Amino acid sequence: MARDTSRDGFSNTALTYTLSNFKPIWDFIQSNQALKRKVNKFLVNSLIYRIPTRPYPYSMMTLDPYIPGTDKPKKTDTYTSWDSLQDRTYTGRHLPPDPEFNQEGNLPNIESLAVLFRKRDGKTKYSEKSTLLFPYWVQWFTDSFLRIDHHNKLKNTSNHEIDLCNVYGLTRKQTNLLRSFQGGKLKTQKLKRKDGVEEDYPLFYYADSEQGIVDPQFEGLYTPINDEKRLPPERKAKLFAMGVERANVQLGYVMLNTLCLREHNRICDVLAENYPNWDDERLFQTARNILMVIILNIIMEEYIYHITPYYFNFFADPESFTKESWYRTNWMSIEFDFVYRWHSAIPEKFIYDGKETPMYASLWNNQMLIDKGLGALMEETCSQPATQIGLFNTPEFLIELTELPTISLGRKTQLASYNDYREMCGFPRVTDFNQITGDDYTQQKLKELYGHVDKLEFFVGLYAEDVRENSAIPALVARLIGIDAFSQALTNPLLSPNIFNKETFSPVGWEIIHNTKTVSDLINRNVPHQDSPYKVTFDL
Amino acid sequence: MARDTSRDGFSNTALTYTLSNFKPIWDFIQSNQALKRKVNKFLVNSLIYRIPTRPYPYSMMTLDPYIPGTDKPKKTDTYTSWDSLQDRTYTGRHLPPDPEFNQEGNLPNIESLAVLFRKRDGKTKYSEKSTLLFPYWVQWFTDSFLRIDHHNKLKNTSNHEIDLCNVYGLTRKQTNLLRSFQGGKLKTQKLKRKDGVEEDYPLFYYADSEQGIVDPQFEGLYTPINDEKRLPPERKAKLFAMGVERANVQLGYVMLNTLCLREHNRICDVLAENYPNWDDERLFQTARNILMVIILNIIMEEYIYHITPYYFNFFADPESFTKESWYRTNWMSIEFDFVYRWHSAIPEKFIYDGKETPMYASLWNNQMLIDKGLGALMEETCSQPATQIGLFNTPEFLIELTELPTISLGRKTQLASYNDYREMCGFPRVTDFNQITGDDYTQQKLKELYGHVDKLEFFVGLYAEDVRENSAIPALVARLIGIDAFSQALTNPLLSPNIFNKETFSPVGWEIIHNTKTVSDLINRNVPHQDSPYKVTFDL
Repeated sequence: MARDTSRDGFSNTALTYTLSNFKPIWDFIQSNQALKRKVNKFLVNSLIYRIPTRPYPYSMMTLDPYIPGTDKPKKTDTYTSWDSLQDRTYTGRHLPPDPEFNQEGNLPNIESLAVLFRKRDGKTKYSEKSTLLFPYWVQWFTDSFLRIDHHNKLKNTSNHEIDLCNVYGLTRKQTNLLRSFQGGKLKTQKLKRKDGVEEDYPLFYYADSEQGIVDPQFEGLYTPINDEKRLPPERKAKLFAMGVERANVQLGYVMLNTLCLREHNRICDVLAENYPNWDDERLFQTARNILMVIILNIIMEEYIYHITPYYFNFFADPESFTKESWYRTNWMSIEFDFVYRWHSAIPEKFIYDGKETPMYASLWNNQMLIDKGLGALMEETCSQPATQIGLFNTPEFLIELTELPTISLGRKTQLASYNDYREMCGFPRVTDFNQITGDDYTQQKLKELYGHVDKLEFFVGLYAEDVRENSAIPALVARLIGIDAFSQALTNPLLSPNIFNKETFSPVGWEIIHNTKTVSDLINRNVPHQDSPYKVTFDL
Repeated sequence: MARDTSRDGFSNTALTYTLSNFKPIWDFIQSNQALKRKVNKFLVNSLIYRIPTRPYPYSMMTLDPYIPGTDKPKKTDTYTSWDSLQDRTYTGRHLPPDPEFNQEGNLPNIESLAVLFRKRDGKTKYSEKSTLLFPYWVQWFTDSFLRIDHHNKLKNTSNHEIDLCNVYGLTRKQTNLLRSFQGGKLKTQKLKRKDGVEEDYPLFYYADSEQGIVDPQFEGLYTPINDEKRLPPERKAKLFAMGVERANVQLGYVMLNTLCLREHNRICDVLAENYPNWDDERLFQTARNILMVIILNIIMEEYIYHITPYYFNFFADPESFTKESWYRTNWMSIEFDFVYRWHSAIPEKFIYDGKETPMYASLWNNQMLIDKGLGALMEETCSQPATQIGLFNTPEFLIELTELPTISLGRKTQLASYNDYREMCGFPRVTDFNQITGDDYTQQKLKELYGHVDKLEFFVGLYAEDVRENSAIPALVARLIGIDAFSQALTNPLLSPNIFNKETFSPVGWEIIHNTKTVSDLINRNVPHQDSPYKVTFDL
């Protein structure tokens, strides 16, 4: 049965229709630089201004049951305090807490919701749009700013910037442990592929994996998480010393970190050749700045183009936005975190070296990358689909591990309802489950569990929506991602008017930035030479 | 001899002339709310946009001879690094370092410059515009954000906000030591004036002043500075426990801190009466927010009106500025620090209780306030003039202690020349000393010491300029203060659109904010009742 689209909102539908049709007109618009910039500015602004802009009146601090800095319990009223406006160790929020909606008894038992994520008849729905690189990329880049503190889930341990902390560490002290202090470069080692060709990798983290002894040069880099501690010595032996505690978690993460390491060091060589008087410090800092802007550009162009069904390519045009009231100090929100919980995008099995392989084998397993090499592994990643984002598609082992705890976190943080978030984002409130999804079974299950659409909670509603045609993600997810991603990426200080120039990046760095458009560009200049370039793309 | 005004710049002169004349027109403009807002917005913007806006490409970090976080010395090239863009523990700067200008031998010997500050024939020049409250206020409020780190003068230990840290402390931990956790109030004690009437004060900091033992409830509040450590026990006994290590430094500082303490607690009473369900935490946080906005308003209205010679009263109109590219994360600059080094504004002697008293007697001497009481002491402060800001007017003991070290700091941080800063701020470069000041002796001394105006350094140039007619400060000082003050006060999160409302401050708090316009309002409602209000004003 087709979805009832009567509550999509006329302006939303019209905008999507316009952007997803009339290709010749969009081609014309994009052939004219001035026009293209105007349209880009208009679209980005009309997206971001749909919801109230930062600073947020409320943060998760208001839910902390203790007066911060003391052990005196306090009442958890919601109001704005100077502390909550200043302390970015607490996660932000777009809507105030809704204790009534989240009160005991109003929502279904959490365990009963497992059925919404479990695959139906064990069948996996594959994406029609995205390669496996897509969820790999997303996990990797969002992990640099959506860093929930495991000691206090109301907090975020990031710097609230796309700062490549996964590559460089979160603090200067960590960064320095990863630097060689020679020619601006990060520490590397050469490792042999199965075919004997050598490639560059980070150093190994453990000096003695049997005893679990960390290489002294990496003391203080991070505190290993429990998953790492439980690894057998042969896996530990191959873990790399990288920026954050989760960097070795999965093959995709390690590939992208390795890619950045190689590109950083490559840029250092180019800069050193052109600016022979520069010392290690200047080479390091400038290469880092260049690489951060390259990744920001890929996110705002190649990645955003992939997730939207539009003929118009958004692009990073920082100068267009300097006079916007949304251009405010970054602060990661709980909602931004929730719209990026794509546990369903990861298949249970994938093809590795031509063979079907369980995905869990790719966790904490760097040997798989070393054996095959970055280029070939990336190409193989891009030759197979991701799975589709949505309900009834999560690998079994992730349901108890991530989906249900997310629902629990949403209740603990007293998130408003799915319908409240629709309203905030400029979508009409739905009045029936068939306005969310056209899938009968999903409608039926949601009705059984929640009774009424007004009782549907944010996280479940987000992923209950059908993925839009030719898109990678559902509509409300897309809108919230667009708002938070653009409004927190374009504010990066490296993109601000007095800094985004040749003076900061050097003329050579400026050229590198403007000549790098895709992940494919990065891969193909950072792997041992071969005759034809590796095929690397988010699009299937 | 009159000053040669040919290098003042036509637009500058025209603007000042227009603003300082045509009173009926300005009165008319200010009688129309919409027009007044437009003019306010235009004037504030045209001031701030004279110079490049934040974020600054360079911070003092580039001058730190050690790689931060390591002990490896580095070359001190100047370039933009991610660290320098992020790390607000380092002071910012408007112009990049100028090593050539500051090189050995290019500038006069520092000791030889003492003559520029020393009073001529021992004569003190008194201000024709300002009462002694003016420098007291300035020292007090700037001390909350211009906090040079004494361990590393390239750093600033503030939160870069007008956050009343002098009253509430810099961190939550410090704040909590000052709170009573009863009814939202700060800890207070009643102390008797000489006439026997009791007034409210902060608690004493020392439990045993003979032994120098701090009251255990204030352990960790701050580390006493050397001046405090050297005090005799009878002075120590009367020091108050307040937000920062310098809060007891001088009578004016203690008066204004005491005023804020009383107003905070008064607001708590009003809120508690109107919102009986509020707990201590909410009362505290809301009272603090209200008080911060009151002080911000006084700074942007009463204080700014005092320092300018204009008929137009600037006012805090946060909504006018949300779409400005200068509306960026605060970052205190070294230049902002230098334009507030008004050592010449403090007279060597002042009237206390009707008697001429050396100013140094007012240092670390809270008994003077306790004996007389806040209202009477404030009125007496406002009945006598400050001294004039400029060269040849600094109390002798401050020349070696503050003026010469400031020049030394300017050189260490490689500040650009006075003329470069003029140019940055939209003033034509001067070509002769007689364009800076009309005073022959000053011209002659500057010429002897510097030879050419292009060699004049920033700090000396700032205060060599004549104070403008009917103004409290010279032109370049005024411009830089305006730029940094407006662009860093209006960005206070409490003034942002989604927060500056009755929801945040409560309807009662909103009313308090809008009904408080002057220091006099604050004083007269926080002192024991008397028949006629105390006269409290910046204007002589």
